[in-house]
Amino acid sequence: MAATVLHPLAVEIFIPVAAGVGILFALVQWFIVSRVSVSSSKDGQHPPISNNGYNDYLLQEEGGIDESDAVAKCSEIQAAIAEGAESFLATEYKYLAAFMGIFSIFIFLFLGSVKGFSTKKEPCEYNPSVLCAPALANAFFSTVAFLLGAMTSTLSGYLGMKIATYANARTTLEARNGVGRAFIVAFRSGAVMGFLLAANGLLVLFLAIMVFKLYYGHDWAGLYEAIAGYGLGGSSVALFGRVGGGIYTKAADVGADLVGKVERNIPEDDPRNPAVIADNVGDNVGDIAGMGADLFGSFAESSCAALVVSSISSFGTDLDFVAMNFPLLISGAGIFVCLATTLFATDFSVIKSVKEIEPTLKRQLVISTVLMTVAIGIICYLALPKSFTIYVVGHPPKVVRNWQLFFCVGSGLWAGLIIGYTTEYFTSNAYQPVQDVADSCKTGAATNVIFGLALGYKSVIIPVLAIAIAIFLSFSLAAMYGIAVAALGMLSTIATGLAIDAYGPISDNAGGIAEMAGLSHTVRERTDALDAAGNTTAAIGKGFAIGSAALVSLALFGAFVSQAGIAVVDVIQPKEFVGLLVGAMLPYWFSAMTMKSVGKAALSMVEEVRRQFSTIPGLMEGQVKPDYKRCVQISTDASIREMIPPGALVMLTPLIVGTLFGVPTLAGLLAGALVSGVQIAISASNTGGAWDNAKKYIEAGASEHARSLGPKGSEAHKAAVIGDTIGDPLKDTSGPSLNILIKLMAVESLVFAPFFKAHGGLLFKLLNL
Amino acid sequence: MAATVLHPLAVEIFIPVAAGVGILFALVQWFIVSRVSVSSSKDGQHPPISNNGYNDYLLQEEGGIDESDAVAKCSEIQAAIAEGAESFLATEYKYLAAFMGIFSIFIFLFLGSVKGFSTKKEPCEYNPSVLCAPALANAFFSTVAFLLGAMTSTLSGYLGMKIATYANARTTLEARNGVGRAFIVAFRSGAVMGFLLAANGLLVLFLAIMVFKLYYGHDWAGLYEAIAGYGLGGSSVALFGRVGGGIYTKAADVGADLVGKVERNIPEDDPRNPAVIADNVGDNVGDIAGMGADLFGSFAESSCAALVVSSISSFGTDLDFVAMNFPLLISGAGIFVCLATTLFATDFSVIKSVKEIEPTLKRQLVISTVLMTVAIGIICYLALPKSFTIYVVGHPPKVVRNWQLFFCVGSGLWAGLIIGYTTEYFTSNAYQPVQDVADSCKTGAATNVIFGLALGYKSVIIPVLAIAIAIFLSFSLAAMYGIAVAALGMLSTIATGLAIDAYGPISDNAGGIAEMAGLSHTVRERTDALDAAGNTTAAIGKGFAIGSAALVSLALFGAFVSQAGIAVVDVIQPKEFVGLLVGAMLPYWFSAMTMKSVGKAALSMVEEVRRQFSTIPGLMEGQVKPDYKRCVQISTDASIREMIPPGALVMLTPLIVGTLFGVPTLAGLLAGALVSGVQIAISASNTGGAWDNAKKYIEAGASEHARSLGPKGSEAHKAAVIGDTIGDPLKDTSGPSLNILIKLMAVESLVFAPFFKAHGGLLFKLLNL
Repeated sequence: MAATVLHPLAVEIFIPVAAGVGILFALVQWFIVSRVSVSSSKDGQHPPISNNGYNDYLLQEEGGIDESDAVAKCSEIQAAIAEGAESFLATEYKYLAAFMGIFSIFIFLFLGSVKGFSTKKEPCEYNPSVLCAPALANAFFSTVAFLLGAMTSTLSGYLGMKIATYANARTTLEARNGVGRAFIVAFRSGAVMGFLLAANGLLVLFLAIMVFKLYYGHDWAGLYEAIAGYGLGGSSVALFGRVGGGIYTKAADVGADLVGKVERNIPEDDPRNPAVIADNVGDNVGDIAGMGADLFGSFAESSCAALVVSSISSFGTDLDFVAMNFPLLISGAGIFVCLATTLFATDFSVIKSVKEIEPTLKRQLVISTVLMTVAIGIICYLALPKSFTIYVVGHPPKVVRNWQLFFCVGSGLWAGLIIGYTTEYFTSNAYQPVQDVADSCKTGAATNVIFGLALGYKSVIIPVLAIAIAIFLSFSLAAMYGIAVAALGMLSTIATGLAIDAYGPISDNAGGIAEMAGLSHTVRERTDALDAAGNTTAAIGKGFAIGSAALVSLALFGAFVSQAGIAVVDVIQPKEFVGLLVGAMLPYWFSAMTMKSVGKAALSMVEEVRRQFSTIPGLMEGQVKPDYKRCVQISTDASIREMIPPGALVMLTPLIVGTLFGVPTLAGLLAGALVSGVQIAISASNTGGAWDNAKKYIEAGASEHARSLGPKGSEAHKAAVIGDTIGDPLKDTSGPSLNILIKLMAVESLVFAPFFKAHGGLLFKLLNL
Repeated sequence: MAATVLHPLAVEIFIPVAAGVGILFALVQWFIVSRVSVSSSKDGQHPPISNNGYNDYLLQEEGGIDESDAVAKCSEIQAAIAEGAESFLATEYKYLAAFMGIFSIFIFLFLGSVKGFSTKKEPCEYNPSVLCAPALANAFFSTVAFLLGAMTSTLSGYLGMKIATYANARTTLEARNGVGRAFIVAFRSGAVMGFLLAANGLLVLFLAIMVFKLYYGHDWAGLYEAIAGYGLGGSSVALFGRVGGGIYTKAADVGADLVGKVERNIPEDDPRNPAVIADNVGDNVGDIAGMGADLFGSFAESSCAALVVSSISSFGTDLDFVAMNFPLLISGAGIFVCLATTLFATDFSVIKSVKEIEPTLKRQLVISTVLMTVAIGIICYLALPKSFTIYVVGHPPKVVRNWQLFFCVGSGLWAGLIIGYTTEYFTSNAYQPVQDVADSCKTGAATNVIFGLALGYKSVIIPVLAIAIAIFLSFSLAAMYGIAVAALGMLSTIATGLAIDAYGPISDNAGGIAEMAGLSHTVRERTDALDAAGNTTAAIGKGFAIGSAALVSLALFGAFVSQAGIAVVDVIQPKEFVGLLVGAMLPYWFSAMTMKSVGKAALSMVEEVRRQFSTIPGLMEGQVKPDYKRCVQISTDASIREMIPPGALVMLTPLIVGTLFGVPTLAGLLAGALVSGVQIAISASNTGGAWDNAKKYIEAGASEHARSLGPKGSEAHKAAVIGDTIGDPLKDTSGPSLNILIKLMAVESLVFAPFFKAHGGLLFKLLNL
């Protein structure tokens, strides 16, 4: 066995402890947030938790309405949002459960059929001296891993939604005590989600491996092949979360805006708008539950890809338990790093003014990246042998040194930071690009859209080059294992990334609640500032999500190719090239579906909102409440109905192509979808983010130039609103959903690789091609 | 020598004769068009040329203004447009000439350096028994071929512009005599361009081969390697034509619309608008000269790709002159087929009403495809040996039968027809998709844009599948030679395709002239009908252009890989994958540049138009003429200035990547750019076409539904105008320019392949990777 500094027992202790600490930390944050009361008694003004936000130059002041009345209103709105989110997730999970049940059977049957449902052990492919588990056992354990992944992802998304809908009103109420206080509440709540997700994901994966090991013994290739189901499970849930949640949130948002802002001329989040609760629910089910499931999927998949590749390399054949767990150790260390990073925002620094919010959030990225770099170095030294061997099908084995792997993981991590900063540059209204877009509103909506699209296209360049360099480096140094750990590197600070990301929708909700509850202008200004920073961090989060998705997909692609036993994917062969071309088309097909879905769902929302305005007397005057529930129901129904076709496209394509056209075409297809999808996803989310912030730039009027375009209601502002509305489905539905498209097709191909290898390419076999 | 039915002498006669007939036919058409007089004497009403358009139920009627006055005005406007177009092309060609000069030196130096500028003959690589021309000679002849290609393309574009600006006013004047008469003038003029281009391209290529052969003798590999420069020359001009022309036309169009329609509320083509002449000039330099250069490039490149591949296959090594000329024979036969097809529109049928225009044009596509299929069959039988061998580097040689090649050429031809019909379905307002987009205008510009983008994405599916099937079929049957001849198949009916395509901008101009000259409502209605049909055919033409570009690029890619001597392009290798990823990004970078260019140029046009409206007294009242020339100048300057960065991106990328990173990365890059570029190009041009026709659908109000959205000036119509304006740069600048991106990078790589093979990949060599 190769020599690692760390003892196997240390690994068995470190990983669960890291996960435990993560969960505990999340619970502590939750507890701290819970001390902000939303019951209407006077104890809403509790004693200080920390000094953060006190000594604030924005002095405490009373809201525009009576104190206890404000608390009661906020609490009521919060309850409505939580109820709407809960009801949507319940409906979604019902469909999800049905899908999972059916798809489990599929997995079991497809994989079981590889060796004709034989229960006989056979000599292992990669180590013929060992007897390997029968295909039927792999089918069974893959199915179990799939269900575990799905359940963990579901749980993480659900908990995230819970804390977000728990924190939104608390953030609003804390905003009365100062912007710093409100920021801390929102950020801590984001951290709850981030840490729960990272820790749960790690813990369940580790436990699954330990339990599966009891059966598999030394057949690690079989063990990790089955574990790959965990990634598939996580990603399948992400499909529902991202696509369903994305359609939900934008149907409500676009629908609310089209009637409210454009036709009725009432402000955003006005309580008279019947779709306003649905809009706020949407933030939680789309940006929180959907985003969480997406990043959980990436984490699970990159871990699985690394494990599958290393199980058939020297770690696996040498039965080197410590080195084998390298991916999990990285994730475990990430939890500690993120914990320390979080303290920099919540305890080591104090936010004194609105201007400090964005820098504080950005500093989180830098701190976590720097600390993580050190941690990676330590783990590479402790947990890896000085040199080891990666086997590549059809190529000579690759000898890798531990310091080389440090560069692989590190390149992914730093590529993530570069993507984050580029995204910020292109979507924050502090910089030229968004200001140019805002400026183009002077000549109307058309030039705004033209400049916005051009900005999105342009914003692709640096992220793609960063990903390309990370890929080249890690690929050259450690083949597909290098890519997989580079993805893990980018995701190692996931807890911090998610905390920053979840902070956005929580602040957005907080702003909505402040408006609906009729809190004072000052409170609303503070929540607006939180929200504006959240817009940029949301774009950064999306950048991370797509960047990691690209790396993960490539790693999965590599693992799939290994598993399917092909040595080259030669695109100057007809099967591969046609796969590549059609694969590059799939993101367009998928985007067409999701965008049209949002359009259709938004139109039915528009009709309902119009109906309520015209049939409920006194609604416009604010004397009667609209029927919020009806709008929540419409968004729920539309999103569930509309997510089926794009979901089917993603889930069925690999199965059909693999079965009918075989592994070479499927490999081409995955490569095409990957390289094409990355570009659309980045450009769509940055275009949308830029339009949103161009509008905010005009509204805020913080500079001479901004004021020359405004104020709200000016022609330029109207043009900016149109851009913002177009950007909504781009940045929150079709763009991020593409992450799922490329990852899920790859992981599904990986899981079904043994089947395709054995029985794939039926059509070509039939035609004798 | 393999047995072909046809004698070499027959080939030597057939090809020049076909070209001659094509040129003659074009001149006859031109002569017929010239008989419509635009001098203001009464002989404007000349005797009938044919019966076409007579016995028309739309009776002859007088224009809204005095007869000779109308003719004089039309003539004056025509002169202004022609002058503007001439001045733009003169400026463009000046830059082009400088570029060609510099780039010729590049080509000569790069290729000359392959063997260190040695003038010694060496044994041929593919046939060591023959002595081959030295690299220096190849460098020289490649440079000459490059210049020939560039000059032929320039000439074709120039002649196209000439006839178009000659025919526009004649079409307007003929519209007074009936819609059928006007249609015939516009269509004949389009045919002039189509036939001149197809015939000139063929003739020059054939003559170049015959002359080069005098030097090369039996070294056919060297001969056709040098001939590839012809494709590069053609495509380089297309870069200037498409990008420069595209920016010109849309800067003028968007600029004119933004001030005229939106701010001043005057109709399109109103003579008071200072940018109106520039707008009409734009149609000629963008859609005529640019489109012509694009398709000429495709034709030249696919011919060259087929010739390069076959020169190193059994045709070349057996010195089978007849089979070697198979690509040129196909193109020659195409001229005869298109000639017959044209007669169906001009002589065998009579257009009696507006409704017959679009079916007549569509019928042209079907007729030419069916006739061409027969012609291909005959040529495959006559000019090919029963079986022959294609050599594929690093793979076993491929034995191909002549009937198999029939399927290759035919698959390209029919894929073109499918693309044409799909494009029509998605962009004509006779069908559901555009009507849905029009319907979405009810809720404003934002939903219009969302639905339009979704439509464009969706419209990619069938064309890509059609291309994929054609590729798979021809690739499987005859490797890269199959792809090249499939591209030729699609382009074999280029004369008809261009005639249909050029018809569009001519009709557009005719409508503009009718409006500006103040002709009667009836005349304007007729030219509008011609123009509406032209919108759809323009989209079809773009579909052809991108479809053929995809096939051509793949063929060039294959030829490049052969020339560079690599056997596989394995995308699960770091160099190739990184190339693929970055290649897929390039179309976005390029589109960002071109769209922003249009935006910027349009803004400077807006300023100028505003300036004239506010500083020239009496302009708005129509008492004074605006300064048209100033606007023409602004468009010219802007387009020349703005085309440099995107042009440099396209021209320099292959050189830099090939030199620094070597052939594998460059191969990945080309594949990535190809599969990603095709999708954006198709979706951009269809989205733009759909928005344009959705607007026209509302304006025309031909159905209950359309009338419920209109009339002009309604909220829905305003939303539709915004969509139309956004679509302008998509469909006429960035979308079609992508054809050039993917083709030009591929052909440039092919031409420089010997250099990259010898000296490429410097950086990786330095880093020892």
